[in-house]
Amino acid sequence: MLPNLPLQNIIQQVQNSLSEDIGHGDISASLVNNHVIEAKLISRETAILCGSSWFEQCFLQLDPEATFSWSASDSDELSENQQVCLIRGKAQAILTAERSAINFLQTLSAVATVTNSFIKLLSNTSIKLLDTRKTIPGLRVAQKYAVKCGGGYNHRHGLYDGVLLKENHIIAAGGIDKAIENARNRISHGLKIEIEVETLSEVEQALDAKADILLLDNMSIEMMENVIRMKKNKGSHTLLEASGNMNEDKIIGLRQLEIDFISVGAVTKNIQSIDFSLRFLEN
Amino acid sequence: MLPNLPLQNIIQQVQNSLSEDIGHGDISASLVNNHVIEAKLISRETAILCGSSWFEQCFLQLDPEATFSWSASDSDELSENQQVCLIRGKAQAILTAERSAINFLQTLSAVATVTNSFIKLLSNTSIKLLDTRKTIPGLRVAQKYAVKCGGGYNHRHGLYDGVLLKENHIIAAGGIDKAIENARNRISHGLKIEIEVETLSEVEQALDAKADILLLDNMSIEMMENVIRMKKNKGSHTLLEASGNMNEDKIIGLRQLEIDFISVGAVTKNIQSIDFSLRFLEN
Amino acid sequence: MLPNLPLQNIIQQVQNSLSEDIGHGDISASLVNNHVIEAKLISRETAILCGSSWFEQCFLQLDPEATFSWSASDSDELSENQQVCLIRGKAQAILTAERSAINFLQTLSAVATVTNSFIKLLSNTSIKLLDTRKTIPGLRVAQKYAVKCGGGYNHRHGLYDGVLLKENHIIAAGGIDKAIENARNRISHGLKIEIEVETLSEVEQALDAKADILLLDNMSIEMMENVIRMKKNKGSHTLLEASGNMNEDKIIGLRQLEIDFISVGAVTKNIQSIDFSLRFLEN
Amino acid sequence: MLPNLPLQNIIQQVQNSLSEDIGHGDISASLVNNHVIEAKLISRETAILCGSSWFEQCFLQLDPEATFSWSASDSDELSENQQVCLIRGKAQAILTAERSAINFLQTLSAVATVTNSFIKLLSNTSIKLLDTRKTIPGLRVAQKYAVKCGGGYNHRHGLYDGVLLKENHIIAAGGIDKAIENARNRISHGLKIEIEVETLSEVEQALDAKADILLLDNMSIEMMENVIRMKKNKGSHTLLEASGNMNEDKIIGLRQLEIDFISVGAVTKNIQSIDFSLRFLEN
Amino acid sequence: MLPNLPLQNIIQQVQNSLSEDIGHGDISASLVNNHVIEAKLISRETAILCGSSWFEQCFLQLDPEATFSWSASDSDELSENQQVCLIRGKAQAILTAERSAINFLQTLSAVATVTNSFIKLLSNTSIKLLDTRKTIPGLRVAQKYAVKCGGGYNHRHGLYDGVLLKENHIIAAGGIDKAIENARNRISHGLKIEIEVETLSEVEQALDAKADILLLDNMSIEMMENVIRMKKNKGSHTLLEASGNMNEDKIIGLRQLEIDFISVGAVTKNIQSIDFSLRFLEN
Amino acid sequence: MLPNLPLQNIIQQVQNSLSEDIGHGDISASLVNNHVIEAKLISRETAILCGSSWFEQCFLQLDPEATFSWSASDSDELSENQQVCLIRGKAQAILTAERSAINFLQTLSAVATVTNSFIKLLSNTSIKLLDTRKTIPGLRVAQKYAVKCGGGYNHRHGLYDGVLLKENHIIAAGGIDKAIENARNRISHGLKIEIEVETLSEVEQALDAKADILLLDNMSIEMMENVIRMKKNKGSHTLLEASGNMNEDKIIGLRQLEIDFISVGAVTKNIQSIDFSLRFLEN
Repeated sequence: MLPNLPLQNIIQQVQNSLSEDIGHGDISASLVNNHVIEAKLISRETAILCGSSWFEQCFLQLDPEATFSWSASDSDELSENQQVCLIRGKAQAILTAERSAINFLQTLSAVATVTNSFIKLLSNTSIKLLDTRKTIPGLRVAQKYAVKCGGGYNHRHGLYDGVLLKENHIIAAGGIDKAIENARNRISHGLKIEIEVETLSEVEQALDAKADILLLDNMSIEMMENVIRMKKNKGSHTLLEASGNMNEDKIIGLRQLEIDFISVGAVTKNIQSIDFSLRFLEN
Repeated sequence: MLPNLPLQNIIQQVQNSLSEDIGHGDISASLVNNHVIEAKLISRETAILCGSSWFEQCFLQLDPEATFSWSASDSDELSENQQVCLIRGKAQAILTAERSAINFLQTLSAVATVTNSFIKLLSNTSIKLLDTRKTIPGLRVAQKYAVKCGGGYNHRHGLYDGVLLKENHIIAAGGIDKAIENARNRISHGLKIEIEVETLSEVEQALDAKADILLLDNMSIEMMENVIRMKKNKGSHTLLEASGNMNEDKIIGLRQLEIDFISVGAVTKNIQSIDFSLRFLEN
Repeated sequence: MLPNLPLQNIIQQVQNSLSEDIGHGDISASLVNNHVIEAKLISRETAILCGSSWFEQCFLQLDPEATFSWSASDSDELSENQQVCLIRGKAQAILTAERSAINFLQTLSAVATVTNSFIKLLSNTSIKLLDTRKTIPGLRVAQKYAVKCGGGYNHRHGLYDGVLLKENHIIAAGGIDKAIENARNRISHGLKIEIEVETLSEVEQALDAKADILLLDNMSIEMMENVIRMKKNKGSHTLLEASGNMNEDKIIGLRQLEIDFISVGAVTKNIQSIDFSLRFLEN
Repeated sequence: MLPNLPLQNIIQQVQNSLSEDIGHGDISASLVNNHVIEAKLISRETAILCGSSWFEQCFLQLDPEATFSWSASDSDELSENQQVCLIRGKAQAILTAERSAINFLQTLSAVATVTNSFIKLLSNTSIKLLDTRKTIPGLRVAQKYAVKCGGGYNHRHGLYDGVLLKENHIIAAGGIDKAIENARNRISHGLKIEIEVETLSEVEQALDAKADILLLDNMSIEMMENVIRMKKNKGSHTLLEASGNMNEDKIIGLRQLEIDFISVGAVTKNIQSIDFSLRFLEN
Repeated sequence: MLPNLPLQNIIQQVQNSLSEDIGHGDISASLVNNHVIEAKLISRETAILCGSSWFEQCFLQLDPEATFSWSASDSDELSENQQVCLIRGKAQAILTAERSAINFLQTLSAVATVTNSFIKLLSNTSIKLLDTRKTIPGLRVAQKYAVKCGGGYNHRHGLYDGVLLKENHIIAAGGIDKAIENARNRISHGLKIEIEVETLSEVEQALDAKADILLLDNMSIEMMENVIRMKKNKGSHTLLEASGNMNEDKIIGLRQLEIDFISVGAVTKNIQSIDFSLRFLEN
Repeated sequence: MLPNLPLQNIIQQVQNSLSEDIGHGDISASLVNNHVIEAKLISRETAILCGSSWFEQCFLQLDPEATFSWSASDSDELSENQQVCLIRGKAQAILTAERSAINFLQTLSAVATVTNSFIKLLSNTSIKLLDTRKTIPGLRVAQKYAVKCGGGYNHRHGLYDGVLLKENHIIAAGGIDKAIENARNRISHGLKIEIEVETLSEVEQALDAKADILLLDNMSIEMMENVIRMKKNKGSHTLLEASGNMNEDKIIGLRQLEIDFISVGAVTKNIQSIDFSLRFLEN
């Protein structure tokens, strides 16, 4: 089942994107006859498709009658040189929107594709891959959607829908237990409390204070094994999240651990654009 | 000399970015004492700095009294573990803005850094490296600024400030000469006319029609040598731009050719985020 | 400690409010000499103060040099005829902003005051009073801040930062256990899962499925006592929230129950405006 | 005949309201099958309906194909447990918009209903009930529409479409006559001049200066009878408006006076939310 | 005394104007050293100054430290080659804002100047010159301010702050008396009712129905004399406004009539731009 | 062929224009029966039509079902008393939008008409008439479209899509040759470089530095003849633009010169509104 689409966000972002490309007008568009034409979208490499609604919206804002027939949906795997979509619409609208539409597709499919490559490393485990707040400015919501299309899960969207207590909060509160108690007294009753820990002593205090989730920051595998053991000994239900410059090798190393989540900044802070092209059909 | 900063754009984009991170409020911020603190920004790898104004703006929108002392300016090369900036401001503002501020810096410095790595390949030539319209949606203006910080030059910003005639325009006009004449009769008198060509016959027609710039799309080095010869024979002043999935190897191969520009989508469509961190100072 | 202020929200809402009152210009303002004057804000009844930042912002957007000296802060109790604030600023700005400024204060203080009157009914219990999504359109964030000023706690802010499974979700999933499992697989890892239950059989299923929170909708006291007993028998840590047309009598009746929360729509959907007036001082 | 609907205002306010409820996305919506369903809106108490266009707009912005069949229009009286509207649309859209839609309806119907209860007290008189600028911030236009649905009349919408001279204007001008003359020389030729008076001496000056309307602020019934006598003696056509903390008792006391208007802040500054519920139909 | 300035309107319009001129950046600005310079504004012809706040705002939005010393205020008469203002600010800001700033000044001073030339024709009469709703799209508020700077008066600002009954309203209501009664029952109590009349019979009906103002549309002087006689005979206080393609000759012809207002579309629908220039001072 | 329409700009500007006219609501509109009516648009003088899309948009934003049948398109010449368009739509929408719609038409047709009158003076020459940045604030894009409808050409739209080096740039760079070289090294590769010159010595330097275009500022005809001679002697292809308070006489004087462009501020900074009226048809 596809995740829910952030519709208002799509409309606004496409408006901004068309606006930065079109400005006071597309100089070249009026040089072309404005009859209805067809064009096909081709994927030039294997990828997980993501961004089809942004892609459509680019054309629809210029030609509300444009139609699209897709051979794949967001989340689907595309093969090299697959015809992904056939577009039918006014020539000027298609020429003007082409670049913006592909820019969305190549960026969001990049996020879904790299997420999916990490997900495959975690197959046959119950560990979930999470994204982070390390995103491209302005694309947070769209990238978090892309992560889900790639098979990942979303950490909090921002500072407003989750609590992550760090060093500063702990110092200010005067200790891990007080920081957690303090947070529990102030936050929305539906939010869990996550706390960042770096040493076993901090882990112990956090488990005792019944933190809902521990963020194990940059720990070695050995240290995490100690954490897991300590958790079991205490009969704790606290969830464990491993974090810190994750890459393929590190993730493979974590496969066998009884942790719940691995959070990976790389799926949203880096973009290795997917290659798509648009071909106009003869008529 | 630094390029001119797109000020209004900076303010707006920082607002959007803070808004997507803060939403209805930073839950954790009020858990911390709001005294004035200091924090230092560290670069974790060598890079070309870009985005310092976006970075500052993130903090300033939450604490207008925050101050910054920089050891480097946009366009400067940073070394690994360099202290790039010392920030002084209210603790809550710094904690709340931290992620957004670094997201701008790591993204824009990525663009400047990769641009600069290509620029170095063209040293001791007169060939200029150009960006394209293959950008991250919403970041066009900021990325084009970053390309200049990295030593590159900007192709047109969008469809409104440049003319690039492609296959469809040529078909609609009934030939290369008519397309150029048609464009010259319609566009602003201060714009040059660029035309995309793929064969030597098209090159000849375009040179004869006195196109200002030829976009040599995906041509082999041999073919480009033919184009240069043809241009010389005609005594033409038309400028030549090489284009098409440029990478390090291809650019090195083009070094010795008498072309004017190489345009490279990779500098703006891919992002290999630069690693920065913010450290809070004891007091 | 005061809750964190939604600053961007304040600026925007004051702009909207001034705009709907001033339109193309305050006709009467130019009829008055624009020297600096003083005015004092008086509370005409006992109340919990809330909205001082909105109040200040109304004047500051018209006279950035205006100054304020307060005898009370948000969350404080005001007595009848207390001088709450002394304002000093340009006469035209004060006259033009007066109505908008008081409209914010009288509305938000109403929310804080009624919340606080309910809070007093729960003194010496560990039950927390929660607000709901039954708010005045456009004032959600401000009203939730006012609830906190009155001593209450915030339920989720909207559909994006909390999960509350209702009848439709349960039917769609094919049962309570499947609905909870389904949700746990899709939502952000930091969110708890709350489910609405109306019968003891539903309660049992929800406890077995380890729902984080039960919303006990319109249950009698006897039925809630059964729920609490069932929870204890199962050794469950699930939290319990009572809900449904809460008023003073019902809340008093719930005082002695071992529930965790009572959610009350009345604190935000009804407004019994607090009476404030502004008096201009002779000079 | 229904008053004219402020259409642009409706679209904007519904956008804001949905935005504050939905944020980056409705987490629960995607857990439900998105087939077309039906739901019925029930009024849980007698009321004057107001806000049906805002209600519809909430659903239409999420499902443009949604349809509505109403058993009543704005201004109509609803009985307890009346089926007011049958909605047909996509399940996810209806679930997501439900709360925002009802929030508008319960708030605006509250204004219309309380207005209407005051109107009934003035039946068989020619006295018109006016609203004031004491409104909920951001809802000015909508509330003034609701007042008309309840049978009331609108005082000025804001500072831009009416003149009301108060103490400060009179002091600045150097007397009532000069203030009125001054205003008449500056304001739009289609606006009447209203002046606030508190003593009989002020009334006399204002009548002599041919003020169009007198605002009788917090006067006793006896004093108003003197004002009316004075007006008759002078053969004046000046209109009279009674004002000041109006409630049921005071309005009943004013019934027999020859005044033209009573202005009542309570109809817009207080909200006693009307109870509506939405029931999903089996299919 | 200067009319009240529409401040929010100024900020917004200057933003729009700078945005349409600067777009993604002022290409030439960075070519100039950005030290503080001085420039003087010169009027090249006699004129009534209007727009100084818009002018200042253009520079201030780019250089908040810019300062201005004026030799004249809005409403003052300028002589040919007068130094109107000395500006001190950053060179790039002044160069970038120059054109937008002068565009406001030359347009608004044009309105004030032509208004003033008509006003002079009405000296020694009590007839007031009114503007109309025939304005340049987007400049309504600014132009109405300019009319006041030129000595004129404002008719209604728009459809929301005045009532003017025309043929269609009269037909719909079933006659002039019913249209007036109908309007009086619906509109804000502070608005006068104006009705457009073309024949003496219509004038008689409108006077009998006690219209507040008659708009005498395109009537000959003889006919207006009949209207005035009829009004006197009836002892009416209805105000009279002459209208219809007013120009210098027609206005001179109306000087001796006992009418109250002449409304003139030409003062806002035509622009004869005033010539200003900006000179940079040597340093 | 009609120039390309700036669609997004049209929608936004019509929204602004309707908003400034309608405000919180059209008071009179609800006094009229809202059945479908017809109205015809008449031109009261000969003119070049421009603005039909803005005109339609005004009605469509209030009645999306309104239809239009035009007897002329933008750029066409209208005769006196020609029926230009027949509109069919809801009575209230047509009455409310009428003034805004005609305000656009009368303003933009004024620009097209005066442009066309200048164009006729240049018939049988190859000289193109250019507009300038001397425009009405907020109407830049619309006016530049109108210039094209009148047969003119657009100079740069703003500071972002063209380079015009003036005295300050030359001083800052240290000479004309350095200024041009400096600019060529910094600007987008598709932009030509234009430089303002006032003396023959400056012309010589600019030609030698291979400026793309010379702006001949306020030169006498004799001086321009010298410039043309100098250009020929040097075999230069630099384009020549004459500028400076252009009027009919001056343009006629320039007809026989071998210059490429004449730029005329008067076509956009002055408005001599075209007279249109709307007549409602009986039914």
